[in-house]
Amino acid sequence: MSDMTWFVVLSTVGAALAIALGVVAPGIAMGRAISQALEALARQPEAEKAITRTLFIGLAMIESLAIYVLVVVLIILFRNPLLEYLLR
Amino acid sequence: MSDMTWFVVLSTVGAALAIALGVVAPGIAMGRAISQALEALARQPEAEKAITRTLFIGLAMIESLAIYVLVVVLIILFRNPLLEYLLR
Amino acid sequence: MSDMTWFVVLSTVGAALAIALGVVAPGIAMGRAISQALEALARQPEAEKAITRTLFIGLAMIESLAIYVLVVVLIILFRNPLLEYLLR
Amino acid sequence: MSDMTWFVVLSTVGAALAIALGVVAPGIAMGRAISQALEALARQPEAEKAITRTLFIGLAMIESLAIYVLVVVLIILFRNPLLEYLLR
Amino acid sequence: MSDMTWFVVLSTVGAALAIALGVVAPGIAMGRAISQALEALARQPEAEKAITRTLFIGLAMIESLAIYVLVVVLIILFRNPLLEYLLR
Amino acid sequence: MSDMTWFVVLSTVGAALAIALGVVAPGIAMGRAISQALEALARQPEAEKAITRTLFIGLAMIESLAIYVLVVVLIILFRNPLLEYLLR
Amino acid sequence: MSDMTWFVVLSTVGAALAIALGVVAPGIAMGRAISQALEALARQPEAEKAITRTLFIGLAMIESLAIYVLVVVLIILFRNPLLEYLLR
Amino acid sequence: MSDMTWFVVLSTVGAALAIALGVVAPGIAMGRAISQALEALARQPEAEKAITRTLFIGLAMIESLAIYVLVVVLIILFRNPLLEYLLR
Amino acid sequence: MSDMTWFVVLSTVGAALAIALGVVAPGIAMGRAISQALEALARQPEAEKAITRTLFIGLAMIESLAIYVLVVVLIILFRNPLLEYLLR
Amino acid sequence: MSDMTWFVVLSTVGAALAIALGVVAPGIAMGRAISQALEALARQPEAEKAITRTLFIGLAMIESLAIYVLVVVLIILFRNPLLEYLLR
Amino acid sequence: MSDMTWFVVLSTVGAALAIALGVVAPGIAMGRAISQALEALARQPEAEKAITRTLFIGLAMIESLAIYVLVVVLIILFRNPLLEYLLR
Amino acid sequence: MSDMTWFVVLSTVGAALAIALGVVAPGIAMGRAISQALEALARQPEAEKAITRTLFIGLAMIESLAIYVLVVVLIILFRNPLLEYLLR
Amino acid sequence: MSDMTWFVVLSTVGAALAIALGVVAPGIAMGRAISQALEALARQPEAEKAITRTLFIGLAMIESLAIYVLVVVLIILFRNPLLEYLLR
Amino acid sequence: MSDMTWFVVLSTVGAALAIALGVVAPGIAMGRAISQALEALARQPEAEKAITRTLFIGLAMIESLAIYVLVVVLIILFRNPLLEYLLR
Repeated sequence: MSDMTWFVVLSTVGAALAIALGVVAPGIAMGRAISQALEALARQPEAEKAITRTLFIGLAMIESLAIYVLVVVLIILFRNPLLEYLLR
Repeated sequence: MSDMTWFVVLSTVGAALAIALGVVAPGIAMGRAISQALEALARQPEAEKAITRTLFIGLAMIESLAIYVLVVVLIILFRNPLLEYLLR
Repeated sequence: MSDMTWFVVLSTVGAALAIALGVVAPGIAMGRAISQALEALARQPEAEKAITRTLFIGLAMIESLAIYVLVVVLIILFRNPLLEYLLR
Repeated sequence: MSDMTWFVVLSTVGAALAIALGVVAPGIAMGRAISQALEALARQPEAEKAITRTLFIGLAMIESLAIYVLVVVLIILFRNPLLEYLLR
Repeated sequence: MSDMTWFVVLSTVGAALAIALGVVAPGIAMGRAISQALEALARQPEAEKAITRTLFIGLAMIESLAIYVLVVVLIILFRNPLLEYLLR
Repeated sequence: MSDMTWFVVLSTVGAALAIALGVVAPGIAMGRAISQALEALARQPEAEKAITRTLFIGLAMIESLAIYVLVVVLIILFRNPLLEYLLR
Repeated sequence: MSDMTWFVVLSTVGAALAIALGVVAPGIAMGRAISQALEALARQPEAEKAITRTLFIGLAMIESLAIYVLVVVLIILFRNPLLEYLLR
Repeated sequence: MSDMTWFVVLSTVGAALAIALGVVAPGIAMGRAISQALEALARQPEAEKAITRTLFIGLAMIESLAIYVLVVVLIILFRNPLLEYLLR
Repeated sequence: MSDMTWFVVLSTVGAALAIALGVVAPGIAMGRAISQALEALARQPEAEKAITRTLFIGLAMIESLAIYVLVVVLIILFRNPLLEYLLR
Repeated sequence: MSDMTWFVVLSTVGAALAIALGVVAPGIAMGRAISQALEALARQPEAEKAITRTLFIGLAMIESLAIYVLVVVLIILFRNPLLEYLLR
Repeated sequence: MSDMTWFVVLSTVGAALAIALGVVAPGIAMGRAISQALEALARQPEAEKAITRTLFIGLAMIESLAIYVLVVVLIILFRNPLLEYLLR
Repeated sequence: MSDMTWFVVLSTVGAALAIALGVVAPGIAMGRAISQALEALARQPEAEKAITRTLFIGLAMIESLAIYVLVVVLIILFRNPLLEYLLR
Repeated sequence: MSDMTWFVVLSTVGAALAIALGVVAPGIAMGRAISQALEALARQPEAEKAITRTLFIGLAMIESLAIYVLVVVLIILFRNPLLEYLLR
Repeated sequence: MSDMTWFVVLSTVGAALAIALGVVAPGIAMGRAISQALEALARQPEAEKAITRTLFIGLAMIESLAIYVLVVVLIILFRNPLLEYLLR
């Protein structure tokens, strides 16, 4: 197998697994935050505004973690900076 | 085995495993959010509107994580940008 | 073993394992949602309509995750787009 | 070992493991749903109709996941579409 | 080792492991359902009929999962459809 | 190592492990059901008849799972149908 | 290594591991049942007879699982039916 | 390495691991039963006789599981019946 | 495969896996902190200011952990200081 | 490596790991029994005699499990009965 | 592959994995401390000063653990003292 | 690698791992016993003498397990009885 | 690969992994101690002095464990005593 | 690779991993003991003296486990008694 093939194959597989593993923690965290928000809503309906605001800021923070993984995966698939050493 | 075969085989297997693993966290998170929403509904039926709205926004956020994985998997199966280095 | 054999064998095995793993999370999530709905029904029978509606929308969302996996598995078994590079 | 032998052996083993793994999540989910239904029945006997109906719809949804796996396993054992590439 | 030996050995081992793994989830689910039914009986003895009926339907549903595995295992041991490709 | 040796050795080891793994789930399920029955007896001594009957039916259902495994193991040790292909 | 050596060594090791693994589930189940029986005794001392009877029947059922494993292990060590194919 | 060496080495290592693994479940079960007995004693001191009797019968049942493993291990170390096939 | 190829491939795969694993703990920690903040809000709405301030400082501390991983990953992808030893 | 070296090395390593693994379950069980005894003492100080007696008998039973492992390990290190077949 | 390549590649991969694994425990610990602080704030708002001070000292202690890992990783990437033995 | 080297290297590594694994269970058990003793002290300060005495006897029993491992490890490092077979 | 390269590479990777794994337990322990201290503060604000003092002594004890690992890692990176045998 | 290199490399890596694994249990145990002590302080401030004394004796016992590991690790790094057999 040529060098380039190794690179292409392992990058592809690595990217697929990385995104699959990388959404695990954000997914669990979101599920936890949302379910707690729903419970808070049921217990203190009049605090809906504060609860919703805190929830959305929190979801944005968690989403940022998934975005980090997605960005690294897309860099690897579309613009891998290490590729230039291979093409030289 | 030729280079292209390696690429095709491992891409296929990697895509299948990635989507299978990638729905784990969203699935668990959805199950948690929905079950908590049902409990909230049973405890505070009059807050149904707020609960349902928060639940749906939350499910959309979680679904986005599964979509990230699906998109990467479909890119790998249909339009892998690294393929051009292999076909050169 | 010829290239095509590798492809066929690993695609078959990969598809079987992917669908087997891919229903884990939806299954657990459904079990959780349904059991919570039953508890909610037992606690607040008069909210049956709201509970049932939320449950079914939730089950549909979870089912969509299993469908993603099934679709990728069927694409791999019946119409793998990467196959053309192998047949060339 | 000939190509066909590899295919037959790995398909057989893969199918056996896939069905064995694939009933794990539905099994756990069913156990959870049924046990919760029984608890709901004990707490609110007069809501038996609503509980039973929700339970059966839920079991059908969960059973569908096991059916997905069974269908893929039977496709692999009896009518594998990839087999034609091997027999050519 | 001849081709047929591989097939026979791996089919045998695969079948043994598949049935051993395949009863895990049904077993756990049954244990859960039965123990909950006993608790429900202790809490609400007068609902015995509804509890028992729901329990038996549930056990039948769970047993069906174990049967799926057993059927696939017996197909593999006694009438493997893929065997004809090996005997040709 | 001759073909037959492979078959005999792996069948033996596979059978030993399969029965060892196959009693895990029934064992846990039985422990759960019995302990719950004892708790129910302590809480509702006058419902002893209904509890005992439900427990014994449940234990029989669970035992059936262990029997499935034992039967497959004994088939493999004493009357493996695939053996004829090996002796031909 | 001769064929017979393989058979003897792997049978021995397999038997040792099988019995070691096979007592795990019965052990845990017994611990659970006994501890629950003790708790029931402490809560309802006057139901001692019913509790003890149910406990002993339960322990016998669980012990049967360990006996299955022990029987298969002893068959393998002392009277392996597959041995005749090896001695031919 | 000669055949006999393989047999001796693997039997020794297998026996050591088997006894180490085989006391896991009895140990956990004993810990559970004893701790529950202590709790029962603290809650119902006047039922000490019934509690102690049930505990000791239970510990004997659990000890029997560890004895099964010890017996198989000692058979392997001192009087392995399969050894005669190796010495022939 | 040339030295440089090894370096490029393993760096790429390592970076993808590192970022995927590195967001696990921060994700779980965020989910925990946010859900607890929501619960605190529901219990003590008038302490919203103190709760929100503590939450945001905490999220920043947790985010710093994810940033450490991201920085090391980007160093590896864009400016690996060890690369000079390879290019010499 | 000579036969005897294999035997000595693997016996040594196996003995070390076996004793390390073999104290896991007794350790956990002792911790559980002792902590429960302390709790019982705090709840029912006047039952100290019965509690202490039951605890010590229990600890002796658990210690016996660790002794089984230690005995097998020492047999392997100092007086392995299988050694005679190796020295012949 | 030359010696230096091995060193560079494994150092890079090792550093990436070490930082990814090294933030797990601090992340979980921080999540726990912060969520408990939030709960304490909700229960005892007037103790805000003491709670916040203890929290920040605690977070600094936990952060120090992550810093240890980061320092070792940066030493490996930028100033590995063992490198001189390799360059000699 | 000479025989003696194998022996020395594996004994050293085995001893290091054995002591590292062997303190796991005693450590957890001690933590449990001590924390429960502290809780008992807080609930029943006047029973301090009985609690402390039981705790110390318990800690000694648990410590004995760690000593077993340490003794075997030191035997292996300093006075391995199997070494004589290697030096002959 | 020369001997020295092996030594340098594996020492580097081992050190990185050791520090990453070695902070896991101290991190979790600190998180637990701090969160409990915060809860104690919220429940008994007037005992702040005793709580803080106990907490800091405890954190120092836990930190000592992380320091042990860090010291061994730094010894390996900067002053490995075994290195002299390699340089001879 | 020469014999001595193997010895040095594996001793170094083994020592690093052993100390990293060996502090896990003491760390968790300390965290548990300290957090319980803090809770006891909050519940029974006037028993501070007894609590603190018991805690410190307990921490010393737990610390002894970590010291066992550290001692074995330092023996291996600085004064390995098996080294003399290698230098002969």
